[in-house]
Amino acid sequence: MLLVLDLLGVAVFAASGALAAVHARLDVFGVMVLAAVTALGGGVLRDVLLGVTPPSTLRQWPYLAVPVVVALLVFRWHPAVARLRCGVQLADALGLALFVTTGTTVAIGVGAPAVTAVLVGVITGVGGGVLRDVLRGDVPTVLRREIYALAAVIGAVVVVAGDRLGLPPTPVAVGAAVLVAALRVVALWRRWNAPLPRPAA
Amino acid sequence: MLLVLDLLGVAVFAASGALAAVHARLDVFGVMVLAAVTALGGGVLRDVLLGVTPPSTLRQWPYLAVPVVVALLVFRWHPAVARLRCGVQLADALGLALFVTTGTTVAIGVGAPAVTAVLVGVITGVGGGVLRDVLRGDVPTVLRREIYALAAVIGAVVVVAGDRLGLPPTPVAVGAAVLVAALRVVALWRRWNAPLPRPAA
Amino acid sequence: MLLVLDLLGVAVFAASGALAAVHARLDVFGVMVLAAVTALGGGVLRDVLLGVTPPSTLRQWPYLAVPVVVALLVFRWHPAVARLRCGVQLADALGLALFVTTGTTVAIGVGAPAVTAVLVGVITGVGGGVLRDVLRGDVPTVLRREIYALAAVIGAVVVVAGDRLGLPPTPVAVGAAVLVAALRVVALWRRWNAPLPRPAA
Repeated sequence: MLLVLDLLGVAVFAASGALAAVHARLDVFGVMVLAAVTALGGGVLRDVLLGVTPPSTLRQWPYLAVPVVVALLVFRWHPAVARLRCGVQLADALGLALFVTTGTTVAIGVGAPAVTAVLVGVITGVGGGVLRDVLRGDVPTVLRREIYALAAVIGAVVVVAGDRLGLPPTPVAVGAAVLVAALRVVALWRRWNAPLPRPAA
Repeated sequence: MLLVLDLLGVAVFAASGALAAVHARLDVFGVMVLAAVTALGGGVLRDVLLGVTPPSTLRQWPYLAVPVVVALLVFRWHPAVARLRCGVQLADALGLALFVTTGTTVAIGVGAPAVTAVLVGVITGVGGGVLRDVLRGDVPTVLRREIYALAAVIGAVVVVAGDRLGLPPTPVAVGAAVLVAALRVVALWRRWNAPLPRPAA
Repeated sequence: MLLVLDLLGVAVFAASGALAAVHARLDVFGVMVLAAVTALGGGVLRDVLLGVTPPSTLRQWPYLAVPVVVALLVFRWHPAVARLRCGVQLADALGLALFVTTGTTVAIGVGAPAVTAVLVGVITGVGGGVLRDVLRGDVPTVLRREIYALAAVIGAVVVVAGDRLGLPPTPVAVGAAVLVAALRVVALWRRWNAPLPRPAA
């Protein structure tokens, strides 16, 4: 179950990285590298922070095969440029939702305390996207987008709370992922804005 | 003692990250995220390099609460824009001084050899600021500022030398922190410059 | 043998970082810092991913002395600006070749499975250059250059295949390094290009 959600997260984050690479006019290998970094970065950070070495993401070949296949599919059949930016954001929202959930669950599974599980879950969710944006020279989405970090924190807290309350983990994980994705998509669609700092005097 | 110095370093680095975020016109969540990354980045790098997992910085809630509170205070009462840059630099100098000292001390405490303790101390001190600058798309201060890396190395060497000479650790740590902060502040104030490369022929 | 190849890789990556720093008009300490980060980044990533803490690169003083000396030599006698870019690329190709080989060999040595050894080898090879480029605010070479990631993957696969076939490790390592360096240099010289994505409709 966790493996399926995790590989699904790898696939959608790979798509977001590949679309961003096509948008930046990288060549076919650049598309593969950015897809793999975006897809695997969050899981590698998670395992390094939890002391799971070598990271499980680097030990199983499906974690490498999925981003490469997704990158080639995106490279060959990428949509029109007007829809590239939208595609990056939607794939990113799904990847965030799935990785926050699996990251928090893995951290609970190795016995991390609640605050660690929340933080590791959030880092797992946002890590791949941050690497994608920094490598392309962009300010990361997590700093620019209003309900991005907040959605990640809410999702991680729901998973930890469900665990503490003894609820069955699978429905909680699915519910948390749906909640995070819905928050992000609605925030993008309705252009929800968080307060900006006062203009400096 | 170490905890107090470490949390003080977290607070001033959080202030430097929050001021930089306000300067970049990020929203309230962006200010919190950049404050937390700047405040916690150095300690997380230190623990990952020393094999302390999960990092102690991610295990104790004060390490999360302090940057969030500092970020909200800075967001609400940030000074006039003309003083933002100055505030970032002063807070950064204090954070560098505190984190170099605690990072080196922690590395000695887990039995690291002298060269490792110096390098881990320097990475602890400069890590948060590098993450802050890279995420904002700037060239990191450590590359641009003349007496930045040098001050960090001097502080770390003083702590290691004090340990090897059997001096009492607390006065040595405080002295090293004061020395690093003083070097940075004087270098900023007097605009000390290191040699530039010859213009290429 | 491994130590010699590794220190050679440290030296040439230090040269590429120092030349890039001179090109960016950093001061003498900035040149040293960028040389050290470029030279040591790949090995530190390798050891953190394999759970070798503190990283061996941070435990032995030659790993620190070599980049500092190389940085001072480059700072004093850097070539004319027209040749700086070329020098960065040549040193980078050699460093990539050496670090892919040593990284893969170290990963095999700690018992990592084949896919992990290949990925850790590639990350060791490209990691220092990625840090160098990101800290300078550039898009990393690994995303821009056609036969860069591919050459690294080929080199790592050769080392793993040689190990699986029971071939003697030293000639295999040297052969793999020569192959990677030759692929990169020829790709640069002949301007080999990988396919770009179709222009978006």
